[in-house]
Amino acid sequence: MLATASLDELRAAVREARAAGKRIGCVPTMGALHAGHLSLMRSALNETDYVVVTIFVNPTQFGPNEDFDRYPRQLDKDLELCRGLGVHCVFHPDVQTMYPPDDATIVEVQGLSTILEGEHRPGHFRGVTTVVTKLFHAVQPDVAFFGQKDFQQQLILRRMVRDLLMPIRIRTCPTVRDPDGLALSSRNAYLTADERRTALNISRALFRAREAIESGELSVAEAEKRLVQVLSSVPGLKLDYAVIRNAETLDPAENTGDQLVGLVAARVGTTRLIDNVLISPPGTA
Amino acid sequence: MLATASLDELRAAVREARAAGKRIGCVPTMGALHAGHLSLMRSALNETDYVVVTIFVNPTQFGPNEDFDRYPRQLDKDLELCRGLGVHCVFHPDVQTMYPPDDATIVEVQGLSTILEGEHRPGHFRGVTTVVTKLFHAVQPDVAFFGQKDFQQQLILRRMVRDLLMPIRIRTCPTVRDPDGLALSSRNAYLTADERRTALNISRALFRAREAIESGELSVAEAEKRLVQVLSSVPGLKLDYAVIRNAETLDPAENTGDQLVGLVAARVGTTRLIDNVLISPPGTA
Repeated sequence: MLATASLDELRAAVREARAAGKRIGCVPTMGALHAGHLSLMRSALNETDYVVVTIFVNPTQFGPNEDFDRYPRQLDKDLELCRGLGVHCVFHPDVQTMYPPDDATIVEVQGLSTILEGEHRPGHFRGVTTVVTKLFHAVQPDVAFFGQKDFQQQLILRRMVRDLLMPIRIRTCPTVRDPDGLALSSRNAYLTADERRTALNISRALFRAREAIESGELSVAEAEKRLVQVLSSVPGLKLDYAVIRNAETLDPAENTGDQLVGLVAARVGTTRLIDNVLISPPGTA
Repeated sequence: MLATASLDELRAAVREARAAGKRIGCVPTMGALHAGHLSLMRSALNETDYVVVTIFVNPTQFGPNEDFDRYPRQLDKDLELCRGLGVHCVFHPDVQTMYPPDDATIVEVQGLSTILEGEHRPGHFRGVTTVVTKLFHAVQPDVAFFGQKDFQQQLILRRMVRDLLMPIRIRTCPTVRDPDGLALSSRNAYLTADERRTALNISRALFRAREAIESGELSVAEAEKRLVQVLSSVPGLKLDYAVIRNAETLDPAENTGDQLVGLVAARVGTTRLIDNVLISPPGTA
């Protein structure tokens, strides 16, 4: 496995792989790899011939009062995990490589980037779309793999790739959960045992909303109302939003048989968590 | 020569050329090709193996009161010119190909895009960087060719390519002028004979400023002052700006031996014209 911080070394390796007729897969991460990332890598290894994992804690997607400084960093352990899985290349650039001096260029998906997560984390998605564009230009993958856990992110990246005519396919892979239902996140490492129990309410409420809608017990509006009520009453949990939206557009859901998504963001202690579930109401195609 | 509006056909042709080991050159244009464009194409044909000319009158780089509707369009004649020169492929997409329904993604070089031309044409450079990014993703050239005539544009595109880690080299080719000095522009077609005579003052004043600085006759500040005075007093010419700046940054020039550029934008009748000259003050490296 090649592990490099050098853009030139990365490009030479990818060029060689492509010249050998290999399809290039890319799994962009911020490191602190967990089973969710490993699942993305396994998909990439199944579906492409040469897999590049990128590890870069991107400063521009963190707000001024967010957890950039304390975000977990464990490069050696991450490299071990990648090596064990059979990943071909890990690109772990430093900030100067990704943001040259006087860097001034941004990529933004307007509209979608300013609702929900974007409303609570101004500038977050601009940071994501900008850095992913850079990583895509660095790696030039045929397919890039993202987790459904970051639902709005993968939707925005799909839109970006389509709008900018990038010759890349986005694959979204299912959220990986602990046996108790908690969606895996590098930020779960921040949680105390008590906070973790509190956090479980998020996935539980989402699962119940899905069940209620899919069984026809509640309308979408009723289920969303209950989702908000349930999560607002959990001690120690501060709800940012809990909504049920059209899964393609994130527009307010209508009862038309569209694929839906329930999305929750909440803070537990000092930790901000997000989760989501896809919901297929009765009559969904 | 392949002439196509289809992204798939373009990509298949470029893929084949690349598989044959050819280096891809790209000359992005808005059509209405003149000798300046032909010079770009000749450079591309000299320096790369497979040349794609793109012809697309990009709506997003025109302001609401600008000349998008009347901008000259002459596809058949343009194709003939490209064919005559030995261009390999002309990509002339329609608006729907470049801007899918609900297109929402923009690329912007901050700072540089809001001064000079950007101040007088708000949103112009955002439109340019967005469409050029799309064209680069469509063509995936090794080298892209732009004219020095659009000086600020080529500077912004260089910055964009660097910042976004695009694997593309930008080549800037010298401005082509009519024998009387007028810089070639598709917009010169709008000028009456009288207006053309008035417009000649722009290049003349720029040449004189260059001479005065390079000979040591005037300081940069003095030459800039005279440039403004001369052009402000030309009947029928409305000056937008006339400046002498650092040619790398467009920051105000200092007398330190940096490479400089004199930049002018002015309206003659209903036609807006720009021009520039590079200036090497005494002591320039």
